[in-house]
Amino acid sequence: MFAKSRGTEKKRIKTPTFARLLFIMIKITLPDGSVREYDAPVTGYAVAESISRGLAQKALACEINGEIKDLSLPIYTDSSLNILTWDNDGGKSAFWHSSAHVLAEAVQALYPHAKFGIGPSIENGFYYDIDFGDTPIKEEELAAIEAKMLECARKNSQFKLYPVSKSDALAFYTDKFPNEYKVELIENLNDGEITFCTQGDFTDLCRGGHIPNTGIIKAAKLLSTAGAYWRGNEKNKQLTRIYGVTFPKQSMLDEHLALLEEAKKRDHRKIGKELELFMFSQNVGSGLPMWLPKGTELRERLERFMRDEQKKAGYLPVITPHIGNKKLYVTSGHYEKYGKDSFQPILTPEEGEEYFLKPMNCPHHCEIYKSKPRSYKDLPLRLAEFGTVYRYEQSGELSGLTRVRGFTQDDAHIFCRPDQVKEEFIKVIDLVLYVFNALDFTEYTAQISLRDKEDRAKYIGSEENWNKAEASIIEAAAEKGLKTVVEYGEAAFYGPKLDFMVKDAIGRKWQLGTIQVDYNLPERFELEYIGADNSRHRPVMIHRAPFGSLERFVAVLTEHCAGKFPLWLTPEQAVVLPVGEKFTEYAKKVAQNLNNSEIRASVDERNEKIGKKIRDNELQKIPYMLIVGEKEENDQTVSVRKQGMGDLGTMSVQEFADLIAGEIQEKLSRLKTIQ
Amino acid sequence: MFAKSRGTEKKRIKTPTFARLLFIMIKITLPDGSVREYDAPVTGYAVAESISRGLAQKALACEINGEIKDLSLPIYTDSSLNILTWDNDGGKSAFWHSSAHVLAEAVQALYPHAKFGIGPSIENGFYYDIDFGDTPIKEEELAAIEAKMLECARKNSQFKLYPVSKSDALAFYTDKFPNEYKVELIENLNDGEITFCTQGDFTDLCRGGHIPNTGIIKAAKLLSTAGAYWRGNEKNKQLTRIYGVTFPKQSMLDEHLALLEEAKKRDHRKIGKELELFMFSQNVGSGLPMWLPKGTELRERLERFMRDEQKKAGYLPVITPHIGNKKLYVTSGHYEKYGKDSFQPILTPEEGEEYFLKPMNCPHHCEIYKSKPRSYKDLPLRLAEFGTVYRYEQSGELSGLTRVRGFTQDDAHIFCRPDQVKEEFIKVIDLVLYVFNALDFTEYTAQISLRDKEDRAKYIGSEENWNKAEASIIEAAAEKGLKTVVEYGEAAFYGPKLDFMVKDAIGRKWQLGTIQVDYNLPERFELEYIGADNSRHRPVMIHRAPFGSLERFVAVLTEHCAGKFPLWLTPEQAVVLPVGEKFTEYAKKVAQNLNNSEIRASVDERNEKIGKKIRDNELQKIPYMLIVGEKEENDQTVSVRKQGMGDLGTMSVQEFADLIAGEIQEKLSRLKTIQ
Repeated sequence: MFAKSRGTEKKRIKTPTFARLLFIMIKITLPDGSVREYDAPVTGYAVAESISRGLAQKALACEINGEIKDLSLPIYTDSSLNILTWDNDGGKSAFWHSSAHVLAEAVQALYPHAKFGIGPSIENGFYYDIDFGDTPIKEEELAAIEAKMLECARKNSQFKLYPVSKSDALAFYTDKFPNEYKVELIENLNDGEITFCTQGDFTDLCRGGHIPNTGIIKAAKLLSTAGAYWRGNEKNKQLTRIYGVTFPKQSMLDEHLALLEEAKKRDHRKIGKELELFMFSQNVGSGLPMWLPKGTELRERLERFMRDEQKKAGYLPVITPHIGNKKLYVTSGHYEKYGKDSFQPILTPEEGEEYFLKPMNCPHHCEIYKSKPRSYKDLPLRLAEFGTVYRYEQSGELSGLTRVRGFTQDDAHIFCRPDQVKEEFIKVIDLVLYVFNALDFTEYTAQISLRDKEDRAKYIGSEENWNKAEASIIEAAAEKGLKTVVEYGEAAFYGPKLDFMVKDAIGRKWQLGTIQVDYNLPERFELEYIGADNSRHRPVMIHRAPFGSLERFVAVLTEHCAGKFPLWLTPEQAVVLPVGEKFTEYAKKVAQNLNNSEIRASVDERNEKIGKKIRDNELQKIPYMLIVGEKEENDQTVSVRKQGMGDLGTMSVQEFADLIAGEIQEKLSRLKTIQ
Repeated sequence: MFAKSRGTEKKRIKTPTFARLLFIMIKITLPDGSVREYDAPVTGYAVAESISRGLAQKALACEINGEIKDLSLPIYTDSSLNILTWDNDGGKSAFWHSSAHVLAEAVQALYPHAKFGIGPSIENGFYYDIDFGDTPIKEEELAAIEAKMLECARKNSQFKLYPVSKSDALAFYTDKFPNEYKVELIENLNDGEITFCTQGDFTDLCRGGHIPNTGIIKAAKLLSTAGAYWRGNEKNKQLTRIYGVTFPKQSMLDEHLALLEEAKKRDHRKIGKELELFMFSQNVGSGLPMWLPKGTELRERLERFMRDEQKKAGYLPVITPHIGNKKLYVTSGHYEKYGKDSFQPILTPEEGEEYFLKPMNCPHHCEIYKSKPRSYKDLPLRLAEFGTVYRYEQSGELSGLTRVRGFTQDDAHIFCRPDQVKEEFIKVIDLVLYVFNALDFTEYTAQISLRDKEDRAKYIGSEENWNKAEASIIEAAAEKGLKTVVEYGEAAFYGPKLDFMVKDAIGRKWQLGTIQVDYNLPERFELEYIGADNSRHRPVMIHRAPFGSLERFVAVLTEHCAGKFPLWLTPEQAVVLPVGEKFTEYAKKVAQNLNNSEIRASVDERNEKIGKKIRDNELQKIPYMLIVGEKEENDQTVSVRKQGMGDLGTMSVQEFADLIAGEIQEKLSRLKTIQ
């Protein structure tokens, strides 16, 4: 089995024979920076045991110099080592990678002629692409494979990884288990770098990264099948991809399946359609959302909210076009990166003119910065734009509002002096947290991405500025009391950054709100300001977008709140339900009164039974239903039902308006205290 | 002289010999529909005299069957006739066309070797393209030519138009006055259709449309010169274009020159730069405006104003992408019209995909209409979008914000039943007039464009619907008391329309706010609604955009108010000027208090003398200046100066805030009364 794990290509560790022969001492650096010495070779398992018995028991795999490996792999040279458990993404990855082997073992037992392609771990589980010959399996057969998988797992077979020569490997897949897919993979490998992995009755081509044995896999679920061309090329044969997920405990699988069920209910594509928030049309184009009236109003409220906050925070709004001349992108450096995988250039009848759909707003904002001389007193200059950008994605990759080809960023670029970076960072963090709280995202962590500790040649910008910026970010995050993880080597070549990871209502994590320092664009655009010393200096640029993309944000928010948006944001705050046609006039008067008080209310005029109206509007997730009939009209009142909570009793229209206004006010003042 | 007059190619009237021989009676239809009979042939002049001596005296030329002709031209057949005076655009056109002849006469007298190209009348005057040989004339020589022109005019020479044979015409321009340009023009004409025009010592190739004699031209000004390729083709020789303007009275010229001077001061490109409203950058691209912070805020206020009014009027906002798939434009019919003169298509790596920058929002809105079944009860459906569209213009045609390649329409499409057209028209007219009044455009007329009275084959949509729509527009305009002109044959092939012509503060007319009925797109997109009769019907679409393009509107508005925007709209309503540095803190407190009261105020913190600060801010056209010094700080007051009006005395900050709020309130309530 030969798979990319989480998108990074693995390199093999060669066995340095001198070390093996000399039995020298090697240094193992642990994640906390501590260093331990061992006789070479040492295994990850041995190191884990030397740390604690408990760790060794929990250990699933290890990360040696950044690559996920089996705990049994001998280490011959000084290395950094991280013992992986179920609590690490890497540990889960090894668990699911190993589970794909067990799936293959089960399939081989039930379908001896099946040929295996590749089978990697993915974000939540794993898959294996399999050639079942002329009769692909049906969804119903998954249950039997699942049962067989668990049977294999219970055998508690060890995962044994061992080197094979290229000729032996080819012979195995030509003579013993004829498999043209594995042959093709082996042909692209170098002799001496090939390993097989065997557990129980099954052997696979594999570069490693397994859990110790199959017995750790206690629960399995095969989720679905899909067609997948061999190596993603539609000219090749279509194989059957089986998706599955496994866990070390049955209760974890049960929880996971419940989560999948809940996620399905909250799917923003489903809710977006039900609430008429947005739509797609093949005539307009894949991945190009069109916002329907209710979605537009919701988005406009989000924009207004952000615009108001940004205004208070000293941002200046600008509007720039959706295309830019080639010259702009030659200057910014993006032109080099436009390839055949992008939206192609737009030519004009004028000779030599070439335009591009803008993939980001920063080059335009740099031009605005350059439009007049700037002094140190003018900084920070914070230019903000709700800028719609276009980036090509393959149509197969598109998904609802989360993966689109056109999206609107709540973008801003802060041009500041190097000594202002920390203060600006603090202000941006304040803004981001205010946004998260206003939208009921209460659990978040921050990742700070800094330079590689060793290799610093690849970064642009002076050592002094980098040190200052990195320290500023760390201090800013600490001052704001953020839970942070620092990742070395994860900074962009042009500056360090801080990303927020937000947990939604059902525990899924989403990356929202990046704050990125940039030394590159000011350099390329030759941006300057006149300092207090009367000489020219280069400003620092900070990119930031609390929502990120409005499209993706609305998707995440919809799934977070399952379509029950916060009262201040929701498209319809109240709906008036007349119990019969003769109360429609009074219902309209009530709605009009509420609209005059800036409350979004409509009337359900349909000629339906009141019970059906209540059910339908409950489904529309409208927070308040106001039922009006003879009694209400006579008393000039409304009978109030709160969504999901039932009857709140009868009150006057003014009392109801106060109720809503109070609820929103209470929320906003709570936010102020958080600030 | 052979020129296009105002862009329309003229056809010649042939002399029907039978009429000349038979002296039959002919019917002349006048613009009011009345018909008079005359012995054929009759001249325009004779008809004018038969109407009134006064009309004949004022007559400059005439329009025979829609073409501008000399008053002396004999008419042989039944015709429609309009006597043109200085009060008609056609009269001015003949006046300026004739003046170009006189310019040529003067140039020929001073530069005997000059060769003449073409010399048409234009919007405000005329030009002539002239080949001066190896040494093009200088700007300074214009005064002498102008003097010579007036000398020629004073000779009171008659404009004599007469037929010449093709061979005689060619001989004239080969032997007598060698001129390869005229030869080229003549070669493209048919023998029997060529006429010359002589006045004084000068003869020109010309199809006619002159005033009776040169003496009517009392005042002339040659304005500028420019290079112009023969026939607009850069491969040809570059001629010298002389621009001029003439008038029947010196006072009119003086007024016109004063207007030009005033227009220069109000040029939105100049003011836009001074007030930092917008900018262009060659790196971003020609004709692609970038809105600077103050311009963006102004534009956002305009948008918010329109959004609020539209919301009250029942419009629903939508947002659609800036590109659309080829399929969309094949359906809409625009694809056929995309040619080599447009922005070229955007290709993607995906095979067979082709996108276009959207040139209009309507096709996207049709897709939204189609996204779900509509019932007659759902109509009218009014979808509104501030949609940015892109249309290619040659870089030479671009000008400030008035001619751009990307602009944002305050677009909306009303999908309604045929019986709702009139009511919707009335509502749109209300909205347009509200906008005009809010922005101090108080003089406007409306043009109603209907079908050709005779040729009806070219229009799509049923006779019944057209009749209903045309009647609806006329009735709606009448009910709203609009001054209207009805133009037959000016309707688009897909529906009748109403355009507003607005007069600005210096008397220039601008077309703003079109309301267009459309039967074509509903047909092409197969839009439907279920009628009360339970069967399928096709809705009517109304396109409308009160501002038109926000870019062009802001340009017109800037020139209209010379940068002194209405108080509710202007970027900065007040600026606080501390008389010295030690009052800056108090100034900031005042500005902050005003900002808290939603008044846009800033502080001029510069270390400058108060006199200079006042002068500079006067130039920035900020409505109110608040001067603060020791006395003001002690008394907690401000000393108020109103732009262009001077000192208003000292008052408390609250009193000043009330003053501004009152002024805006007063304006708004005045608007409500207009409604």
